[in-house]
Amino acid sequence: MRNFNEDNITQAVLSRLSGCKDDRTRAISEALVRHLHAFVKEIEPSEAEWARAIDFLTRTGQMCSDTRQEFILLSDTLGVSMLVDAINHRFAGRSTETTVLGPFYVEEAQDLPLGADISHDADGPPLLVRGTVRDQRGEPIAGALIETWHADDEGLYDVQCSTGRAALDMRARFRTDDNGRFWFRSIVPAAYPIPNDGPVGKMLDAQGRHPYRPAHVHFKLSAPGFETIVTHVFLDGDRYLDSDVVFGVKDALIERLGSVDDEPDTALLAYDFVLPDQHRQG
Amino acid sequence: MRNFNEDNITQAVLSRLSGCKDDRTRAISEALVRHLHAFVKEIEPSEAEWARAIDFLTRTGQMCSDTRQEFILLSDTLGVSMLVDAINHRFAGRSTETTVLGPFYVEEAQDLPLGADISHDADGPPLLVRGTVRDQRGEPIAGALIETWHADDEGLYDVQCSTGRAALDMRARFRTDDNGRFWFRSIVPAAYPIPNDGPVGKMLDAQGRHPYRPAHVHFKLSAPGFETIVTHVFLDGDRYLDSDVVFGVKDALIERLGSVDDEPDTALLAYDFVLPDQHRQG
Repeated sequence: MRNFNEDNITQAVLSRLSGCKDDRTRAISEALVRHLHAFVKEIEPSEAEWARAIDFLTRTGQMCSDTRQEFILLSDTLGVSMLVDAINHRFAGRSTETTVLGPFYVEEAQDLPLGADISHDADGPPLLVRGTVRDQRGEPIAGALIETWHADDEGLYDVQCSTGRAALDMRARFRTDDNGRFWFRSIVPAAYPIPNDGPVGKMLDAQGRHPYRPAHVHFKLSAPGFETIVTHVFLDGDRYLDSDVVFGVKDALIERLGSVDDEPDTALLAYDFVLPDQHRQG
Repeated sequence: MRNFNEDNITQAVLSRLSGCKDDRTRAISEALVRHLHAFVKEIEPSEAEWARAIDFLTRTGQMCSDTRQEFILLSDTLGVSMLVDAINHRFAGRSTETTVLGPFYVEEAQDLPLGADISHDADGPPLLVRGTVRDQRGEPIAGALIETWHADDEGLYDVQCSTGRAALDMRARFRTDDNGRFWFRSIVPAAYPIPNDGPVGKMLDAQGRHPYRPAHVHFKLSAPGFETIVTHVFLDGDRYLDSDVVFGVKDALIERLGSVDDEPDTALLAYDFVLPDQHRQG
């Protein structure tokens, strides 16, 4: 087990994994080594390029903080997050389409009563969000947990604003009522560039890509006995619907803003969600 | 350009790269997307596994500091560093074999005169290192730069010791004399585990692998008109020669310790290096 070269190094590393006791860990490790080596053999990086890759990964890790997840951005912008999402949501039957979680989800958002205003931005264009959560047979799901978060009218999330905004804003947790209904108030979110002052922004620039996402509201929906759904509702008419930097748009998730009776200044976003029955993963 | 699923997401991401103006950046980006997606499609990660991968990469980046490069350790332990090394050293003709740089190289080591003692460890077993640097025709190379670094007799590098050792120790820069010769004094290095208190250590543990490298002295050799050589000289008889955690051992780089006349307590490590003529990379 010496004298490794281009022809025998991959098998040598695979052989070294034979002592791995956990089958899944071994399978993932073996696949990683095979695909990673195939990538390196195809591109034949110079030593300078290898060093730049090490530096890129290091800076990506060091960009991460409590409010910034640069590796999720990397996964999102390389289409990996949507691929993982697709693999994990091969549901049979009619249920709401899923899309990426994104880097701005916060677990500890506030529980608010139905109808609450989740934005503290008095200048943003008023928005009423309402809809239902139902099962695949069309029955309403009472008490379903709705976690929602979105950007403001300048495209910024609360966690990106260092000053001038409440620590957590434009995000909240609600429970559907007995008829599976939910409603809350906020402001109309804008399209925005993903944070592009870090390594992922530099990568997009080098790849000749814009960093924009079309305007959307995030939803994470869960209830006992059902699969959890992570998705967005996109606003129809956005210029970036066909070039979302994270490949997240699906036609079934696009909704046109409507109007609210007696409130001419308020836009309405209405969407009815369907949760799939819980299933076992293979 | 919407509604991406397992079947069309890879092509969608590749299409998005069509605006990339730099051919090399596009080629690397396309290969990365193809191989990364193939890896994900093969292992079909659960969302929890994807989240653990994000966390692993994040922790790997955040483990890096001025004296610790966890992503190089990851590259080394997955055999990628040796593969890149092999790809970049397809030299024709007789020259010294290369191996990994490793994570402990420091550019700003001290220039010392030939014969200097580079270790401040009075208790370590004394070592005399000597040899020559020649070209492929056997002619000595005068004034060649020799950068050398190694671990102490407990297997620790200077940069791993927070106290009790000079800031830079067991590393130095020398120039060969007019006859291409070099010699310096130090202590005999020990085999050691790569730093395994971080994510890479946890990975090795999960893979059922030990973290050890056989004892060795690092050399980086450079001279105008010649390719720079990064290599080690390994000490013959080490128990880890056939299971080096970074796959770096080559028979031609193993040397048996000898003895020094009139110095019964001093071990001799003698090695003659051959630098290849400079060539252009394709």
